[in-house]
Amino acid sequence: MQSAFVDKSDCRRQTIFPGVDITTAAGQQMMLSYVHIAPNAVVEQHSHPHEQVGIVVEGRAHFYIGDEDRILVQGDMYRIPGGVPHRVVGLEEGAVALDVFHPIREDYL
Amino acid sequence: MQSAFVDKSDCRRQTIFPGVDITTAAGQQMMLSYVHIAPNAVVEQHSHPHEQVGIVVEGRAHFYIGDEDRILVQGDMYRIPGGVPHRVVGLEEGAVALDVFHPIREDYL
Repeated sequence: MQSAFVDKSDCRRQTIFPGVDITTAAGQQMMLSYVHIAPNAVVEQHSHPHEQVGIVVEGRAHFYIGDEDRILVQGDMYRIPGGVPHRVVGLEEGAVALDVFHPIREDYL
Repeated sequence: MQSAFVDKSDCRRQTIFPGVDITTAAGQQMMLSYVHIAPNAVVEQHSHPHEQVGIVVEGRAHFYIGDEDRILVQGDMYRIPGGVPHRVVGLEEGAVALDVFHPIREDYL
């Protein structure tokens, strides 16, 4: 049985856009994705059928979700229904965020 | 339709144990719970059928999940299958964490 504690050094890492690196860990029906956004890096607009929720852990970034946009800082939370296009623009200090997906993203296993 | 951005001032707040305050926001099939643990406060052992995943956003806390335990700091993630007993002990500096539940916790609406 997998540990309840996620050891990032055991996790899959992927660069999903230039300067945007994710470290992912699966639970049972949710997937954790720890996202590092380098200064001024961009998560280009995309969408997926999975619902996504998350929080900014460090730094600041400009989130565009559907028709809304806001600059988020540490502790700010967001929720993205499946199918809604979204984009994230890192600011000069970069950012770290946690995304949680349901169901599991098979492309992040 | 609800905003993708969670305004904490619009959210339900509850004190679930002495010194442990949560601010909750529902998505569609996941629920966000922003948890503030005051210095030395304790989330007493409990369990629920919902799967829970999360991350420490600030501070440090000692997590006990099933038969495992670990002190977690900013950026450390955890995953708790439904039904597994867990307990969290705040240390001298307190902590902030994000918990995400699936399915929605009706008691947090």
